[in-house]
Amino acid sequence: MPTIGVLLSGCGVLDGSEIHEATLALYFLNKAGAKVLCLAPEMTAPAVDHAAKVPSGETRNVRVEAARIARGAVTDVATVTADALDGLILPGGFGAAKNLCDFAEKGAKGTVSPSVATLLDAMHAAGKPIGAICIAPAVLALALGRFHPELTIGNDPGTAQALEAAGAKHITCAVDEIHVDAANNLVSTPAYMLGPGIADIAKGIEKLVAEVLARVHP
Amino acid sequence: MPTIGVLLSGCGVLDGSEIHEATLALYFLNKAGAKVLCLAPEMTAPAVDHAAKVPSGETRNVRVEAARIARGAVTDVATVTADALDGLILPGGFGAAKNLCDFAEKGAKGTVSPSVATLLDAMHAAGKPIGAICIAPAVLALALGRFHPELTIGNDPGTAQALEAAGAKHITCAVDEIHVDAANNLVSTPAYMLGPGIADIAKGIEKLVAEVLARVHP
Repeated sequence: MPTIGVLLSGCGVLDGSEIHEATLALYFLNKAGAKVLCLAPEMTAPAVDHAAKVPSGETRNVRVEAARIARGAVTDVATVTADALDGLILPGGFGAAKNLCDFAEKGAKGTVSPSVATLLDAMHAAGKPIGAICIAPAVLALALGRFHPELTIGNDPGTAQALEAAGAKHITCAVDEIHVDAANNLVSTPAYMLGPGIADIAKGIEKLVAEVLARVHP
Repeated sequence: MPTIGVLLSGCGVLDGSEIHEATLALYFLNKAGAKVLCLAPEMTAPAVDHAAKVPSGETRNVRVEAARIARGAVTDVATVTADALDGLILPGGFGAAKNLCDFAEKGAKGTVSPSVATLLDAMHAAGKPIGAICIAPAVLALALGRFHPELTIGNDPGTAQALEAAGAKHITCAVDEIHVDAANNLVSTPAYMLGPGIADIAKGIEKLVAEVLARVHP
């Protein structure tokens, strides 16, 4: 069975990986029989109080917090090469836009963390599929914009414009659907960029996981 | 549609609610059209580093951390009465055994936090269904042992003996199955007490959610 990397960015929608999106990706991957390798950057980041929705004043280690979702060790993304993976999936959450890159702050002028950019470049060069959920297509737009990828974040005009300014073509998409960029081997789904409920986003994530697995090299 | 409480105990298997179990419960509840009210105790608890699996030396607020799983405000369980709920589900994780009661430390001699005990007593007295996942049946054994409930935590002999010492009858159960105590209106499933994978535990959790909803008063 293929090994699919799941690139986490912490634990919680406001400062890390969106928990439902990450968990559902792990669920559908496991249900399909795929092996999973959870990855995250080794870094600290400001924490957000998810009840009050304000900064808590703490910093937390992104890779260590991601282990809450993974239920165990999470590999530093800087130590993983594309050879180890048959495909890669990026769940959403603000962590994708703040810890994997600085899209949240700088939009289309942002850059991707070097270890994440290196892995994304290598996966793309090897023709291995990459799936991006919710806001995570913004990471792909910054990393791979020079290849003019087709991506969806649903239908939010401001975010879509930022993706296009980074070189991507944005495709409007419903929450229960995916968009496939066959040329670049990229799959994306809006998830909580549209919502509204976990059962709604699950439909798109299930299709994204199936499409990523269908695109793994035989 | 019925309103089902989901009683969380933090965010992460080693010091709070097991994230996959809680997320899958929310997923199957939403898929079935149920309304959900996420609850947690207002308290602080020691945090555990989930990568190294050792205490991190911090304390965190259980209700605030649970908001990471809920994606928003979590109601203090002390403020909720059985009138507000048609049923209640308790995901597992060490938080169930450490933050909702002190089973992790004291086993059958443990006691349940007063606000949790009050709600469980009232739900039971009203004949409203309660579902418990993974280690969470230990909370029901401590709270409702005097009614000799039938519960499962899978097949772990030590834990099963502790449940029986608290007054429960333990029933061995596979991960993809549930045990129903019709007399007490309780449903339980082993989940990660058995594992091994998220797709395995999902089967039992899906059945547990369906059974709790089927037992809601018409």
